[in-house]
Amino acid sequence: MLNNLMHNEPPALPGRGFIRLRIDLSYDGTMFAGWASQPKLRAVQSEVEKALQIAFHLKNPVNTIVGGRTDAGVHARGQVIHADVPESVLKEDFGKIKYSLNGLLDADVRILDIANSPYGFDARFAAIARTYSYSFSNGAPDPLYRNFVVPAWRKLDVEAMNKASEKLLGLNDFTAFCKRTQYGTSIRTLNQFDWRHTDFGVMATLEADAFCYSMVRSIVGCLLPVGEGRRDIDYPKQVLDSEVRHDDIVTMPAHGLVLEKISYAADDELMARQEITRARRENTEVEN
Amino acid sequence: MLNNLMHNEPPALPGRGFIRLRIDLSYDGTMFAGWASQPKLRAVQSEVEKALQIAFHLKNPVNTIVGGRTDAGVHARGQVIHADVPESVLKEDFGKIKYSLNGLLDADVRILDIANSPYGFDARFAAIARTYSYSFSNGAPDPLYRNFVVPAWRKLDVEAMNKASEKLLGLNDFTAFCKRTQYGTSIRTLNQFDWRHTDFGVMATLEADAFCYSMVRSIVGCLLPVGEGRRDIDYPKQVLDSEVRHDDIVTMPAHGLVLEKISYAADDELMARQEITRARRENTEVEN
Repeated sequence: MLNNLMHNEPPALPGRGFIRLRIDLSYDGTMFAGWASQPKLRAVQSEVEKALQIAFHLKNPVNTIVGGRTDAGVHARGQVIHADVPESVLKEDFGKIKYSLNGLLDADVRILDIANSPYGFDARFAAIARTYSYSFSNGAPDPLYRNFVVPAWRKLDVEAMNKASEKLLGLNDFTAFCKRTQYGTSIRTLNQFDWRHTDFGVMATLEADAFCYSMVRSIVGCLLPVGEGRRDIDYPKQVLDSEVRHDDIVTMPAHGLVLEKISYAADDELMARQEITRARRENTEVEN
Repeated sequence: MLNNLMHNEPPALPGRGFIRLRIDLSYDGTMFAGWASQPKLRAVQSEVEKALQIAFHLKNPVNTIVGGRTDAGVHARGQVIHADVPESVLKEDFGKIKYSLNGLLDADVRILDIANSPYGFDARFAAIARTYSYSFSNGAPDPLYRNFVVPAWRKLDVEAMNKASEKLLGLNDFTAFCKRTQYGTSIRTLNQFDWRHTDFGVMATLEADAFCYSMVRSIVGCLLPVGEGRRDIDYPKQVLDSEVRHDDIVTMPAHGLVLEKISYAADDELMARQEITRARRENTEVEN
């Protein structure tokens, strides 16, 4: 706890007289400069915090803590945040509050759920895994999907991409796919990485405990030439094993990326999980 | 032919020294006032005609004839048009022309194909069938899909919708689902009408020789309460059989509708098909 204060970190528990709300939301990132508030730019965070302030009739802005900080243009289908608000402001049921928030927000942000959170919940530090998807077209792109599907002009070989992706699973040093490593380790556990056909093309799904900056976009950029038949199935694993950043790997555009899900520890393990993540963070900046 | 001139109709064949191009295209209708050019409004037709004029270095605008005229907000994945241009302007291969056109057009319109058309081809009058899709969400809507998926807040029973839809197939008088009938008959042949789960919810596919104005949007508006369990499976057929326009059937929003495909007669039957459609049109305004 002392460390948290030293690092100016958000508190592990809400203050006296406050309750911690868990809010699940989705957004189309096209018209946003990302999750995080920035001066003069439209960010999801500032829009949501403003809506919370109005919905709860508060004098001061509501601070939110986000589970998966998304970049400009990145979308979210299962973003999770928390906000500590005075107990006294909860005068309506959560269904009505959700309805109010969605009325206040523009159509590109939707509150999916708002509820009291269990003891020890923290949207960022109690998370155990993040799931992202990345979508390519499978041949000529469809203009209806252009804000969330990246054009792949040739038909992609999903089977080859799956074989190549499987080799990256497990606990690995992902330095080769991490843009910035100055903050510490790039060692991550990749639990899931597969490709499937969707109605709009071909979609990768990746789940890991955490991702370093641009990791998903670099990994899919490494797999794309495998799908196109320009690289063989062993190529991504060779890149991974090199453990150096490869300049010939294209970091794919932000708009193909969707934060699908954030997984949390079981209710009775939330506080323990927070402490583990916060302790680890003294040495490592966990980028999502 | 005389009739065509009397009605100021587009010619059945290109004039001497002209060739007829078939152009396949797709568009996101969100930011358009529909296909047809209108003063001061952004329409797909005027954007495409302007691009054709520039790409072919023509002094005069290129007139296009459309296979399926779409309303404001309606999308197209398989729109077909034709344009008669002087043979002399074709100085590049069609691949390069397509590339130029896509460079000239905004990202919400994409030329899929441009080619010489067979003798007797006419985008409108040689068509034998149109296929439309209509998409609902299946529960809470996803903001990424909000421009082409209409929210359905309850889970939809696709099996019930399929059973009800099947009863509407065949040659029927669709007066009950046609907004304007002053132009003549509402008798149409519905070849296909089914529902399936997609990655963005639930999608209806309808194929008919032609559709009268707002017909697809009215039919799906009649099927929605069946999917929600508010109406039974026989309801849509009862509405059809009544053969009068029903005011309690909601015409669903334009943005869920996509023109998927236009089917044409075989190459050696194009001219005969044109004559049939044009003759029929003396009595009937065929609305697509």
